[in-house]
Amino acid sequence: MPGTIHGVGLGPGAQDLMSVRTDRLVRGARHIAYFRKAGRPGQARRIVEGMLRHDAIEIAMEYPVTTEIPLSDPRYNESLSAFYADCTERLAALAQAGEDVVVLCEGDPFFYGSFMHLHSRLTGVVPVRIVPGISGMAGAWTASGAPITWGDDVLTVLMATLPEEVLVRRIRDTDALVVMKIGRNLPKLRRAVAAAGREAEAWLVEHAAMPEQKVTPLREADSVTPYFSILLIHGQGRRP
Amino acid sequence: MPGTIHGVGLGPGAQDLMSVRTDRLVRGARHIAYFRKAGRPGQARRIVEGMLRHDAIEIAMEYPVTTEIPLSDPRYNESLSAFYADCTERLAALAQAGEDVVVLCEGDPFFYGSFMHLHSRLTGVVPVRIVPGISGMAGAWTASGAPITWGDDVLTVLMATLPEEVLVRRIRDTDALVVMKIGRNLPKLRRAVAAAGREAEAWLVEHAAMPEQKVTPLREADSVTPYFSILLIHGQGRRP
Ligand SMILES: C[S@@+](CC[C@H](N)C(=O)[O-])C[C@H]1O[C@@H](n2cnc3c(N)ncnc32)[C@H](O)[C@@H]1O
Ligand SMILES: C[S@@+](CC[C@H](N)C(=O)[O-])C[C@H]1O[C@@H](n2cnc3c(N)ncnc32)[C@H](O)[C@@H]1O
Repeated sequence: MPGTIHGVGLGPGAQDLMSVRTDRLVRGARHIAYFRKAGRPGQARRIVEGMLRHDAIEIAMEYPVTTEIPLSDPRYNESLSAFYADCTERLAALAQAGEDVVVLCEGDPFFYGSFMHLHSRLTGVVPVRIVPGISGMAGAWTASGAPITWGDDVLTVLMATLPEEVLVRRIRDTDALVVMKIGRNLPKLRRAVAAAGREAEAWLVEHAAMPEQKVTPLREADSVTPYFSILLIHGQGRRP
Repeated sequence: MPGTIHGVGLGPGAQDLMSVRTDRLVRGARHIAYFRKAGRPGQARRIVEGMLRHDAIEIAMEYPVTTEIPLSDPRYNESLSAFYADCTERLAALAQAGEDVVVLCEGDPFFYGSFMHLHSRLTGVVPVRIVPGISGMAGAWTASGAPITWGDDVLTVLMATLPEEVLVRRIRDTDALVVMKIGRNLPKLRRAVAAAGREAEAWLVEHAAMPEQKVTPLREADSVTPYFSILLIHGQGRRP
């Protein structure tokens, strides 16, 4: 009997925002895997600090260093692809030996997640199960203190990695907005929000549901923002 | 000292997809409130079946019957508005008497939720806190077995209550799609998906994370769908 690979959503950051199902799997796991940048503790691992079994075996999957390869270079994709294939092999070998593995996923696993790249490779090879999670964006709009969408508001979710002109057009053409993967793209995103005429409505939420949580009107935000940042424009739809 | 009104996200349906924080609040609550249609048990209440304290006091907030008033009639809004004002009064009175109240919210409270109409009225009157939840759409894409968004896919979330021509334009112009509030709007939504040329990519997920969960290609779906239905088109973005 092969073991199962569980991709579990951890939610936005606070330990008690994990689902009861994820909490149970994390606390019971013998093998626990997570992605991280080389030399960093990793956010997913940080979220479960203090929850693991004393005999848990940790599998840190460290991203290859790609900072010197531009995204457009085919070697970027090749390097990542080899990395995911390698991770898949490690996890599949454990499952084939009958072991269950819990893979930690920030937010919800199927929403712009890294585990998706293992999921597609593991499917059909060994049993894989997903536990959904509270997304980072839900953590962000909760932190902002206001609902994101009302009535029949249209919500658009964008990555700040998109070209500036695409951002402008999309930001103009939506009621409510969520932008993720901001980091170094903040100056471009700011210009796009301004060009779309929506600067006064925009909020920047950093580290939602984490101890360092910060909510700032975009206009007053610093010029640097961490990886865990989300831009929000709240919908203003129908409300009786 | 006034009590606090907690709007807690229950997630898509399965009890163990509630967050640990919501689980704790629900199990400990003396006063527990929820919306429902008159004469129905109510989905939110159904989710917490078996979890409540034996001495919990339930506050069922029953929607006024509006089926005979068209949405465009001002009396529709007036009737709902009076209802929300009345609920607000009941909950605020409890909080002012020092009692905490837990209000059950399907999915995530700030994402097209009913509690939002109480939240805006309670804010500044008594303490209100929100616990985010796993959205119904995360339950739906998890049920579908495939990620909703990759790389820099654009995700659009629409309500099927929108006019048909708006649906067509928006469905054509997105990578990944989520449509909620389908019910009686299914025939219109189907025509819109077909007009946008995307019928072959569309899935209908009914009762995600509930015992009656059902996932069907839109083309093979029945002509009737329950209130708890979500249409999905998965993004096909960059994947190394
Ligand atoms: C690779 S995506 C992963 C998204 C995740 N699967 C989810 O459901 O939220 C990473 C991006 O998520 C956003 N993010 C996730 N959690 C966050 C949090 N707690 N606070 C702020 N941003 C967050 C940031 O925009 C970050 O760049
Ligand atoms: C008023 S909205 C509330 C959304 C909720 N706050 C959330 O975060 O999912 C109601 C709509 O949510 C969708 N929905 C919520 N939970 C669902 C589930 N478990 N399965 C299918 N659809 C669901 C349906 O489209 C339904 O018409």
